[in-house]
Amino acid sequence: MNDDSRWLAAAAALAARARPLSRPNPGVGALLVKDGRVLARGWTQEGGRPHAEAVALGLAGDAAHGATLYVTLEPCAHQSPRGPSCADLICAARPARVVIGCMDPDPRTSGAGLARIRAAGIAAEYLHSPACEESLAGYLLQRTQGRPHVTLKLALSLDGCIAMASGESQWITGAEARAHTHAQRARSDAILVGGGTLRADTPRLDVRLPGLEARSPTRWVLTRGTVPEGWNALPSPEAIRDMDAVQYLFVEGGAGAAAAFLKARLVDRLLIYRAPILVGGRPGLGDYGLCALSQAHGRWSLVERRALGSDTLEVYSAR
Amino acid sequence: MNDDSRWLAAAAALAARARPLSRPNPGVGALLVKDGRVLARGWTQEGGRPHAEAVALGLAGDAAHGATLYVTLEPCAHQSPRGPSCADLICAARPARVVIGCMDPDPRTSGAGLARIRAAGIAAEYLHSPACEESLAGYLLQRTQGRPHVTLKLALSLDGCIAMASGESQWITGAEARAHTHAQRARSDAILVGGGTLRADTPRLDVRLPGLEARSPTRWVLTRGTVPEGWNALPSPEAIRDMDAVQYLFVEGGAGAAAAFLKARLVDRLLIYRAPILVGGRPGLGDYGLCALSQAHGRWSLVERRALGSDTLEVYSAR
Repeated sequence: MNDDSRWLAAAAALAARARPLSRPNPGVGALLVKDGRVLARGWTQEGGRPHAEAVALGLAGDAAHGATLYVTLEPCAHQSPRGPSCADLICAARPARVVIGCMDPDPRTSGAGLARIRAAGIAAEYLHSPACEESLAGYLLQRTQGRPHVTLKLALSLDGCIAMASGESQWITGAEARAHTHAQRARSDAILVGGGTLRADTPRLDVRLPGLEARSPTRWVLTRGTVPEGWNALPSPEAIRDMDAVQYLFVEGGAGAAAAFLKARLVDRLLIYRAPILVGGRPGLGDYGLCALSQAHGRWSLVERRALGSDTLEVYSAR
Repeated sequence: MNDDSRWLAAAAALAARARPLSRPNPGVGALLVKDGRVLARGWTQEGGRPHAEAVALGLAGDAAHGATLYVTLEPCAHQSPRGPSCADLICAARPARVVIGCMDPDPRTSGAGLARIRAAGIAAEYLHSPACEESLAGYLLQRTQGRPHVTLKLALSLDGCIAMASGESQWITGAEARAHTHAQRARSDAILVGGGTLRADTPRLDVRLPGLEARSPTRWVLTRGTVPEGWNALPSPEAIRDMDAVQYLFVEGGAGAAAAFLKARLVDRLLIYRAPILVGGRPGLGDYGLCALSQAHGRWSLVERRALGSDTLEVYSAR
C-alpha cells in the first residue's frame, strides 16, 4: 500500500463519522495533506451538507494552496440549491493535487467532477481504494443496484441456536455482544425483523447506548400483513428496492427473515455473534432453498474476528 | 512458569507419542536433564512396556548419575511379571533429583513411588503440572471415575448444521478438517456414532492417513439393538464405564448421540470444525435436556482455535 492508498484509507475511516446521519447523501471523508501532515479533515455533515470537501477546504483556508486533497468519493460537479459544487470549490482553493478513492456513479457527476478539476489545471486522479468502496457500500449499491446494503445479524450458540425449544432466548450472547449490536443499529438507516420475531419478542430495536438514543433507525417487519404503530411493513426482501433513502439495512432475524433474505441473495454482510454455549434448541436459520452443499461453499469471506466478552464476533462479506 | 514446569510440559508433549498405543497403560513421558541439556528421552512403548522412565534411563546409562529426571506421572512402585518397578530402576540409576507432574491414583503406587525414591536418598518432588494432567486425562479419568475421557466432535456450518434437510452431508468441512479428524481418531482407543448415523452414512470411521491405518480405533454404536459385524454396541452413554482399556473415546455424532452424551454430562472436550457456509438444514445437536439458558453458560472454555483450510477448528474443554 503506497502513501496515497494509506491517506485514502484514513479518509475512509473518517467517513465512518458521517454514517448514517449524512443520509440521503453518501457519507464521504476528506483529508487535506501537505508535506505528510494533515492540514484539515472533513466529513459529510448531518442531512448531507456541507460536503466533506467543503468542510476540509473551509477549515484550511489559504493553506489549501499546493496541498493534496484526498476524498473517498469523486467531488460533485453539479450546482445545488444548497450550495456550489465541490468541484468548483476545489478549483477555487487551488490544491496541487486531488486523489479520489471511488468514482461517483451519480450521472450528474460520474467523471464530470474529475474533468472539471483537471480543466482548471489541477492534477486529479482516481486510485481504486477498497477501503473507500467499503465505506460507501450503501451509497454505491443504491446508485448501481437501487437497493440498500444489507447486513444480516445472527446471535448464535455454538450449535447455531437462537433460542431454546421453549422459545427462551434471553440471553444467548452477553452484554458486550449486545452493546456491539446496538452500535451497529446506530450505524444503520433501517432495521428489520421477521413477523414471528415481532410477535414473539416485541423487540424495541432501538439504540440503547448513552448519547446515541436519537440514532435509532426506522423499524421494519417482513410481513404482508399489518404492523403495529411505529413500524413499517416490508412485503418481501425484494421490496428493499422501494426503501427510500435507506443506505444501510440491518436484518436482526429471526430464522425465517434470515432465510428469506439469503434465498433472495440480498445479504451483503454477515455478523455472527457466537456464544460459547450449547443449546440444542431452535436453529437461527431456516431452509433458504439451498439445492446442494457444493452451492453453499465459496459464498462468504471472513473479514474480521474479535472477542466480545466471552463471545466471538465474526464478520463475513458476500463474495 | 519456572524451568521445572517447562521441562514437565516438554515431557507431556513427548507423552503424546505414546497415545494411544501404550494402552492399557498410561502414556507417560520422561526426560533426563543435566546442566540444561536433555540426556535422554523416553515414552511408554506399545502395549505399555517398557515404561517411559525405563526407556530414558536405559538410553542414558551411567550418564543418569546426578541428572534430573522429569516424568509426567509418578513412577510405579510395584514389581510386575513384565519387569522391575520404575522406582527401583531410578534408585539404581542414582539421578540427583526426580520431578513428577502427576501423582498416580493407582493404589499400588499412589505415593509409594515417590516414597521409595526418597528413601533411597534421592530428592523427589511432585510439582502440579496442568500439561501433564492434560496428557494423562484418559488414564486419570479411568482411575478416578472409572470411565474414559470423552471428546465430542461436531463438524458444523456457521448456522450449526451437519447436513441439508435432504440428508446430504458431504461435505460440510474441507479436506484439511477431515484429515485432522482422522488424526484425532488415530489418537483414540474407541470411536462412536449414533444408530441413525450408522444407518444413514454407514461410516467407516477408520484412520485414512498414510502410515496410520493400523491405528484405527474400535468402533461403537450407541444402540440397544444389534450391530453389524465389526461394530460394538453401547446401550447408553453411562455404559462407557464398562468399556475396558479405553482411555480415549471419540464421539463423532450424529445429533442424537451428541445430545445423549451431553445430557449425561459425559463430554470432556468439544472439537468444533466450522465451515464458512450457511446451510439452513439439519442441526448438529438435538435437545439435550437444558432447562434454562442460564444453565448453558459457563460450561465450556475455549482452549484452542486454528484455521484448517477455510474451516476453523475450535477446541473447548468442560469446566
